Amino acid sequence: MQFIFLLHNMSLLIFFLGISMSLPLVVSFIYSEQDFTAFLFSFLVCLFLGSILFLLTKRPKREISHKEGFAIVAVGWIVVAFFGALPYFLSGSLNSFSDAFFESASGFTTTGATVVTNIEALNHATLMWRCFTQWLGGMGIILLSIAILPLLGVGGMQLYKAEVPGPVTDKLKPRIGETAKILWKVYLLFTFLEFILLRAGGMSFYDAICHSFATMATGGFSTKNISIEAFNSAYIDGVITFFMLLAGTNFALHYQFLKGNVNSLLKDEEFRFYLLIILCSVLLVMLGLVLFDGHDLLHAFRLASFQVVSIMTTTGFSSVDFEQWSDFGKYFLLVLMFVGGCAGSTGGSIKVVRIYLLLKQGYRELYRLIHPHAIVHVKFNNSRVPSEIMDSIWGFFFLYMVLTVFAVVIMSFLGLDMVSAMTSVAASIGNIGPGLGSVGPSDNFSAIPDVGKWILSFCMIMGRLELYTLLILFIPEFWRK
Amino acid sequence: MQFIFLLHNMSLLIFFLGISMSLPLVVSFIYSEQDFTAFLFSFLVCLFLGSILFLLTKRPKREISHKEGFAIVAVGWIVVAFFGALPYFLSGSLNSFSDAFFESASGFTTTGATVVTNIEALNHATLMWRCFTQWLGGMGIILLSIAILPLLGVGGMQLYKAEVPGPVTDKLKPRIGETAKILWKVYLLFTFLEFILLRAGGMSFYDAICHSFATMATGGFSTKNISIEAFNSAYIDGVITFFMLLAGTNFALHYQFLKGNVNSLLKDEEFRFYLLIILCSVLLVMLGLVLFDGHDLLHAFRLASFQVVSIMTTTGFSSVDFEQWSDFGKYFLLVLMFVGGCAGSTGGSIKVVRIYLLLKQGYRELYRLIHPHAIVHVKFNNSRVPSEIMDSIWGFFFLYMVLTVFAVVIMSFLGLDMVSAMTSVAASIGNIGPGLGSVGPSDNFSAIPDVGKWILSFCMIMGRLELYTLLILFIPEFWRK
Repeated sequence: MQFIFLLHNMSLLIFFLGISMSLPLVVSFIYSEQDFTAFLFSFLVCLFLGSILFLLTKRPKREISHKEGFAIVAVGWIVVAFFGALPYFLSGSLNSFSDAFFESASGFTTTGATVVTNIEALNHATLMWRCFTQWLGGMGIILLSIAILPLLGVGGMQLYKAEVPGPVTDKLKPRIGETAKILWKVYLLFTFLEFILLRAGGMSFYDAICHSFATMATGGFSTKNISIEAFNSAYIDGVITFFMLLAGTNFALHYQFLKGNVNSLLKDEEFRFYLLIILCSVLLVMLGLVLFDGHDLLHAFRLASFQVVSIMTTTGFSSVDFEQWSDFGKYFLLVLMFVGGCAGSTGGSIKVVRIYLLLKQGYRELYRLIHPHAIVHVKFNNSRVPSEIMDSIWGFFFLYMVLTVFAVVIMSFLGLDMVSAMTSVAASIGNIGPGLGSVGPSDNFSAIPDVGKWILSFCMIMGRLELYTLLILFIPEFWRK
Repeated sequence: MQFIFLLHNMSLLIFFLGISMSLPLVVSFIYSEQDFTAFLFSFLVCLFLGSILFLLTKRPKREISHKEGFAIVAVGWIVVAFFGALPYFLSGSLNSFSDAFFESASGFTTTGATVVTNIEALNHATLMWRCFTQWLGGMGIILLSIAILPLLGVGGMQLYKAEVPGPVTDKLKPRIGETAKILWKVYLLFTFLEFILLRAGGMSFYDAICHSFATMATGGFSTKNISIEAFNSAYIDGVITFFMLLAGTNFALHYQFLKGNVNSLLKDEEFRFYLLIILCSVLLVMLGLVLFDGHDLLHAFRLASFQVVSIMTTTGFSSVDFEQWSDFGKYFLLVLMFVGGCAGSTGGSIKVVRIYLLLKQGYRELYRLIHPHAIVHVKFNNSRVPSEIMDSIWGFFFLYMVLTVFAVVIMSFLGLDMVSAMTSVAASIGNIGPGLGSVGPSDNFSAIPDVGKWILSFCMIMGRLELYTLLILFIPEFWRK
């Protein structure tokens, strides 16, 4: 583990983060808003710090090691969240650095939880920056989950090692570069398509950009206080639902699909299971809305499909204040918070493939009790899943549960009621955004004590990095030579 | 799978259940209460049906097969709950057969959830029968978890295959008989000791018997509406806490301890982890009571230790209406509902050893990321845990979560609020008893719709039989030749 390597990569990250601040800078200039100086200063700080660090650290000539890979990813996300918080803090849009860091971490992890009480009072540049951080975070996540984690062997993602588009090599560097280029094209294409369709639905140029950014990242930051409900349009609800669905799907499959390989998407077991869960959930939530909340069927369908897809893909937009639903619908959304998107998507949480494989193995255990001597392997897309990968997935699932429970204990100790404590953590570690209770869709996270905000920020980053990538830094063994 | 085998064993169960009804029969006679006829009739029905079935089914001469073992255990528990419900139903103590079955299942599974609103209005015989069913269920569970499940290979309990006291043989029959005799002596001894100590604390003869029955089974049925709080005695709280602790410990270890092998208890990793969790939980809940509920330290300790031990061992007695606590304490108890007692105890839920091993493997996965080529095995009490056993445990944990979530969806659909739906299921599948919300310690399960009562009864039996033993009956493969 050479720290110079870590610092060198951080210099690049900080530099490009600075470059990306030119977007809100331009927006601020166009609208001639007062937070221009805050963005300019943050922009310069990043460029300056990034350049200095770049010049001080020479890029070592050897390959990146496993350990260095982990450190770069984990520290990278924290560093980006830190510098991304500068504009919020310097412009005074947010009251404290805790708030600014929370909002920035929520952005770059594509969570979408906010501490802003009156979103519409924020300047255009700040609102754009919020959504843009999500979009950048989404780019990072696609790369991470398709190109980096499979190679590092995190939480079962080794399963996708062979399916990565781009050159087949075990060296991190060239593979990552090529894969990134391919997948980002898809990401960019979808974002652009959504923008066009939202514009066609009458959304303003500015809102359409912001919401396209936030959708494709399964982020969920909106420019409106009451999120998508503000547009009050079935068309816009539909477009966003569709693109949330796409954003929750494996981008490597999208790439195959766009190349004309339609079957690769339709035959993928994870994608089919993903659609199945969504279908069943929409029907059940719809039924609940009709029975308990007195909605008519069509309206119930519109509300159920939007909210189910939004929560399950971990986007976190809302087209209604579902906090007002009867408990059945709310509980169902809480369950979906623990499912999440497909692997290789921008969605967070446990992920469909893991749930799918765990169910398969749970059933296999029943089978094994009946036939104690039979050897039955868990299969995925027609290949046998090696037991090491199953072990990784079990470990991931259990740690996810344990860490959630622990974080809820702390939030509960900080004075949150049970439902708010549970859902604030579930929504953070799953990178969803809104929860229920005092952190419901019409509320926000501002009332949570500062310690709680830091813990939730930590949960967001940990969840985004598939737990292990961040946790590993806390194992003394990691730092040993 | 020979059904005659199943029927033969059921005949014995029903017959002995009938015999055991002589206890409440005698009680009813002594107090000359009106439910005498109901008990007499149930008693006769069981003896008669049991005898007839016994005569009609000849005992096959071969060994019991694996499949038959599963069927006997699962069907046995249901049959016993069914016939055990007769007195409640026939005497009119409970309004419907759904209620009677719920109460009986709650008894035999040592859960302790009740549908009785005014417990103190019940006759002595009925109250005694409730506690006695728990005690009998506790006997069944000790046998099941130490002698039967390890041989059937359920949910990781194979781990204990070598540690069963009694003759070492892989044949089910002789081993079970010997083990039963040994462990039931310990069970009887502890019950008797608790009875003596409760009497010494001024509890009436009748109450002392009932509460000793319910404690050692980690059952939690009381003769009082407000459970142990009614006695308002620190001494009685202390005695019951101590015996709940014992009841939540592996009885095979108790046996070793009583034989003079003190180390076997103290060196057992599961027992140590069990004590550690209890210690930490008591301290935290105590802190919560002091900070949020304004109790003084000593009183907080008394309340915290009783409630923590009661919930964690899945007993379900209460010495205070913890529904009135602030959310931190309540949430903490909810978490403990998912831990449970040690394997081989009368406690239910997931069990300490599973949580312990899952944590160990979760950590191992982190280690493996740092050293991808290292082979590290999970160890328990100095021996390596085979990967098949780990797989069983993972499968168990995941199914436990999935089934809980599903059952909560249904309960929520039946109109229960979120907290009540969650805790009613957690308290049933974990064999605890009271939950929170509308099924809190000062409330009961009577307001739940009948469908809900049947589902919770199913959860109790499923939880008690370590999920797999009951679920396996629903796999078509099981019934194939």
